[in-house]
Amino acid sequence: MYFASDNSGPVLPQVMDALAKANTGFSMAYGNDAIMSEVRQTIRDIFEAPEAAVYLVATGTAANSLALATLGQPWQTVFCSSVAHIHMDECNAPEFYSGGAKLTLVGQNDKMTANELRAAIEGEETRGVHGPQRGPVSITQVTEFGTVYTLEELIALCDVAKSYDLPVHLDGARFTNAMMALGCTPAELTWKAGVDAVSFGGTKNGCMGVEAVIFFDPKTAWEFELRRKRGAHLFSKHRFLSAQMQGYLSDNAWKEAAAKANANAAHLAGGLRQIDGAAFMYPPQANMMFVALPRATHKRLFAAGAAYHLWSGSLEGDDPDEMLEARLVCDWSVTLDDINAFLDLAKG
Amino acid sequence: MYFASDNSGPVLPQVMDALAKANTGFSMAYGNDAIMSEVRQTIRDIFEAPEAAVYLVATGTAANSLALATLGQPWQTVFCSSVAHIHMDECNAPEFYSGGAKLTLVGQNDKMTANELRAAIEGEETRGVHGPQRGPVSITQVTEFGTVYTLEELIALCDVAKSYDLPVHLDGARFTNAMMALGCTPAELTWKAGVDAVSFGGTKNGCMGVEAVIFFDPKTAWEFELRRKRGAHLFSKHRFLSAQMQGYLSDNAWKEAAAKANANAAHLAGGLRQIDGAAFMYPPQANMMFVALPRATHKRLFAAGAAYHLWSGSLEGDDPDEMLEARLVCDWSVTLDDINAFLDLAKG
Amino acid sequence: MYFASDNSGPVLPQVMDALAKANTGFSMAYGNDAIMSEVRQTIRDIFEAPEAAVYLVATGTAANSLALATLGQPWQTVFCSSVAHIHMDECNAPEFYSGGAKLTLVGQNDKMTANELRAAIEGEETRGVHGPQRGPVSITQVTEFGTVYTLEELIALCDVAKSYDLPVHLDGARFTNAMMALGCTPAELTWKAGVDAVSFGGTKNGCMGVEAVIFFDPKTAWEFELRRKRGAHLFSKHRFLSAQMQGYLSDNAWKEAAAKANANAAHLAGGLRQIDGAAFMYPPQANMMFVALPRATHKRLFAAGAAYHLWSGSLEGDDPDEMLEARLVCDWSVTLDDINAFLDLAKG
Amino acid sequence: MYFASDNSGPVLPQVMDALAKANTGFSMAYGNDAIMSEVRQTIRDIFEAPEAAVYLVATGTAANSLALATLGQPWQTVFCSSVAHIHMDECNAPEFYSGGAKLTLVGQNDKMTANELRAAIEGEETRGVHGPQRGPVSITQVTEFGTVYTLEELIALCDVAKSYDLPVHLDGARFTNAMMALGCTPAELTWKAGVDAVSFGGTKNGCMGVEAVIFFDPKTAWEFELRRKRGAHLFSKHRFLSAQMQGYLSDNAWKEAAAKANANAAHLAGGLRQIDGAAFMYPPQANMMFVALPRATHKRLFAAGAAYHLWSGSLEGDDPDEMLEARLVCDWSVTLDDINAFLDLAKG
Repeated sequence: MYFASDNSGPVLPQVMDALAKANTGFSMAYGNDAIMSEVRQTIRDIFEAPEAAVYLVATGTAANSLALATLGQPWQTVFCSSVAHIHMDECNAPEFYSGGAKLTLVGQNDKMTANELRAAIEGEETRGVHGPQRGPVSITQVTEFGTVYTLEELIALCDVAKSYDLPVHLDGARFTNAMMALGCTPAELTWKAGVDAVSFGGTKNGCMGVEAVIFFDPKTAWEFELRRKRGAHLFSKHRFLSAQMQGYLSDNAWKEAAAKANANAAHLAGGLRQIDGAAFMYPPQANMMFVALPRATHKRLFAAGAAYHLWSGSLEGDDPDEMLEARLVCDWSVTLDDINAFLDLAKG
Repeated sequence: MYFASDNSGPVLPQVMDALAKANTGFSMAYGNDAIMSEVRQTIRDIFEAPEAAVYLVATGTAANSLALATLGQPWQTVFCSSVAHIHMDECNAPEFYSGGAKLTLVGQNDKMTANELRAAIEGEETRGVHGPQRGPVSITQVTEFGTVYTLEELIALCDVAKSYDLPVHLDGARFTNAMMALGCTPAELTWKAGVDAVSFGGTKNGCMGVEAVIFFDPKTAWEFELRRKRGAHLFSKHRFLSAQMQGYLSDNAWKEAAAKANANAAHLAGGLRQIDGAAFMYPPQANMMFVALPRATHKRLFAAGAAYHLWSGSLEGDDPDEMLEARLVCDWSVTLDDINAFLDLAKG
Repeated sequence: MYFASDNSGPVLPQVMDALAKANTGFSMAYGNDAIMSEVRQTIRDIFEAPEAAVYLVATGTAANSLALATLGQPWQTVFCSSVAHIHMDECNAPEFYSGGAKLTLVGQNDKMTANELRAAIEGEETRGVHGPQRGPVSITQVTEFGTVYTLEELIALCDVAKSYDLPVHLDGARFTNAMMALGCTPAELTWKAGVDAVSFGGTKNGCMGVEAVIFFDPKTAWEFELRRKRGAHLFSKHRFLSAQMQGYLSDNAWKEAAAKANANAAHLAGGLRQIDGAAFMYPPQANMMFVALPRATHKRLFAAGAAYHLWSGSLEGDDPDEMLEARLVCDWSVTLDDINAFLDLAKG
Repeated sequence: MYFASDNSGPVLPQVMDALAKANTGFSMAYGNDAIMSEVRQTIRDIFEAPEAAVYLVATGTAANSLALATLGQPWQTVFCSSVAHIHMDECNAPEFYSGGAKLTLVGQNDKMTANELRAAIEGEETRGVHGPQRGPVSITQVTEFGTVYTLEELIALCDVAKSYDLPVHLDGARFTNAMMALGCTPAELTWKAGVDAVSFGGTKNGCMGVEAVIFFDPKTAWEFELRRKRGAHLFSKHRFLSAQMQGYLSDNAWKEAAAKANANAAHLAGGLRQIDGAAFMYPPQANMMFVALPRATHKRLFAAGAAYHLWSGSLEGDDPDEMLEARLVCDWSVTLDDINAFLDLAKG
């Protein structure tokens, strides 16, 4: 009963197989391997972006930080949600990689709205050189609260950014979960909506540790390569990043894993909805949910070995009925048996 | 006939097996996995350093840069050889991670001497706040030219550093090759000689992409953890870094791989020595050598599919007898057949 | 009728005299001048801090950024008001000097409250290495909206910081204006309240360009000196910074200038209060105020040559009665005639 | 008898007068003052560069660091002499402002030669993303050893830089001394030779603390303004920087001060040449010289109150005849009486 995160589950068999298959003889280092050439083409095909610059790094934070540093300048501010991973969970990596840029927090919720974004942008740079300059907009899709921007919402945000000539970055650590939830194409979720660069996540969806960074306009590609190298994120045995992505994108493995994770979450959410008093902070739309349950329920679950994060409150406390929020995440590997066991316990 | 680098060969079967074995169920993320606990203990045992702080990252540049940033300050200068990897091949990563420290180049050769190091240290910081302050000493072992510091040489360098209260970092991308060449223990090659932190390489010796950073005095451990995270080098699915190191250190795999690589290089060097005119820039002492061969020989080798780097000169040129230097590197996976085939071609 | 800022008025005669007097012969460079020795002692005496480390720089942004970088770490977040100068008006200088630290904005108003500060601190660093670590608290006194923290309020903020072992920085660009408004001593306004380092402003109160940075615990002094030098803020002809501060602190010039500026502002505010509909955003407590006046009044004032910043809204607009906020600042040099002329115009 | 530096002498009367004259009433802050408009035009006229972007900062290190950061990128290396002020005397400020660029040291002497520069450039960037990329060339004129590049030498260096498309920065802390020594125009010493940006020093030649940074191609002007602001080098009471430069450039004050300083040095050097055994490290060509004198002579000079830096060796030592090098610098304010007194003592 492991719902703590989709960053701690196993690796897809297709990815393990690709790694094993890649492990023969010598290969050009530093991204010049043949598998990378294949992966680059596959990603360009999938995204309908024949000119796109495509790079691989091993962590989501590297993907986000390097992409934002490439899109922006150190004297700028990046616009992002107040709960954005780049703000909350990267220990100032975007500030570090950008050379000291600022993050301007937009809104209070899972999603930024176009109006909030416009207001935030308007709030900056009215002071010449004195204030931070307006910089990239970064959007997380799936959001940190498990919701999914509709294409209309995404386009509206991009339109605001474009009206100020600001580049748009998409933090797609759970890109495929969002795509499957929306039933759209990769292109629709990115450049067709106005996204300039995307962190296309693999790690949370069944890879070992690989994320693609895709620039739809390749003009800053060389800068990204230098930033990646001096950030120590260029792998010598790069073929093993390439192979992960190769396996991930083969045979629809990526789509099926995300679909499975989303279905697992839907099943879990469906069960939780039938529990008296269980309240969702946000509608679960992909593979993650935040739900309030009574303290007594949490105690029962943890005692039985369930693993997940308590999002608010503490198990300590006298009132067994007090509602405490849980974050529950499903990856592709969670079993229905586990979900059902969890639900049985939750129902008491 | 692949002698281009030891960063492009295959992964040891023990490492692949450990990865496969690690791929079951869920595991704590970000270094809290059980395998890491085991690996930490193994490394402490191997290094006879029960208090050491042990971390894993995926690239050698990350290991070096993060270690040096932790040991030093941005207003300092790092003392290293003029051919040091941290100077030549990391695209300013040490400068980036340190926040703008300088590198002071010591000597002109593969190895720094104690006298050169002392002179370089004396040459800095005679100007109060005006000049860069003296910072860490970084020593590469195996050197970038394939030679190995003797323990006496290493101790002499550390003694100089200590006499100025400067910390010592060892860039051990080829640590085990050096250790096997010297027939010494890990402790003798590090803290017993005066080394404060080591980048203990795995990648070049049969791993997929993992390096340990070991601080023998764990007092700066917390800072390293924060630097690693904000550098985007903390893996969520960390167990797959741990597993690589676990497999690498199991059953003497690491020692055998290095011994094999060294033996391969010795065989290659022995054969080359019998070629008229073949001249070694430096005595090959581990798994890498730099040797001058006639242009005609190089042409013959490349035409036959040999892969290696021409270190000086160019294949273009009229004189078939002009001597051009080659860098030849052997990893554990090079076969005697390949070496012999190469030698046969070289002999003409 | 110049009320645009206290950073654009003339220099006190005592400061000009001290500069002229200092301009004889040679003097030790880089802060080793005799005048600096005198100034250091004067400041230690004034602040009742015989051990304090005292440094001079030429701009308030340098004072703030260097002080905060010395007190904190790049992976931390600085807690400050959402309207703090360090956030709004320094073009990411604190982020730059700190090497990429973050700023966490506390509250929505001129002043942070102790409760808001505690909540903000509690909101950070619950995630191990993932989130930014808690760093220095920076308090602006006089606030950016012209109000003054009472000693009780200041102590309460420092107490919160201390309860988390966080250092406290005071941005005292208008330090003396606050001190005169409160009728307290420099020590009461700083270390007795719990402040660890203060930017003790001179520029806005009659100097040409000089700010002292004072660390009450001198243990990080050496680091500050290196940061100042590598930030290019160490003056060779330092005696001319020293002389400014010498003149400023002589004969109570600093106190009298601030008292005069505050009195000017009080006179201006008193007159404005008698105008129908004039509304103050915050109670003016030192030498700066924010007041809403009808558009027609602004037009009349600007047409007559008054200089000040419109803080909200725009002169363009049809409705002559719409209220637009003005920022009005008095320095020591503003004349009563000018204030009265302004008030006459404002009254219509 | 003060020959320690030209950074510790008095300020020219024309500069003091301009400061006093500027100290009336209010003035626009942050470089928008009327005096700056005048100064900008004067500089454009003097340099025959009607489009040039002109900025003022208060220190030479700020001028150099901000100029180089604007011309280059953090993953590049700056080519400069091994004795360059930016390398030896700025406590890593160029590395800090550039975000971690490297400095590649060219040659061993006061001047770089075109051949040395070409060799150094050729030595970098043969490794794709692995090595530092080639960046700006920085030339110091007057050199740190008191010699002056001829226009031919300067053009040759710029030509080399241009052949690699590298921008050229001139560190002109003693610009006017060089110009007067060469008898050339500002344009000939800069853009006509191929210089892209110059730090046009005022401080060492009679100002209080002001340097102009001039970009002959203004395309990066906006970036410099942002870098200056976030570096905390934009003065609010900017008119007092402007006024210094205004006074400095008025009535040929700048030229006369430099001519006087050079003449002082020539007189000093002429006298020293007549001393048996006095040996110059480099031919003194502007206002600074390095000369070897016997220990006994140094003792006599210091005992009599002469102030200068011993460049090599130590006063401690038994041998009264051992030659120790002195650095002797003259500014405009040194008197012939002082020089003659010094020479008399030196002659013994």
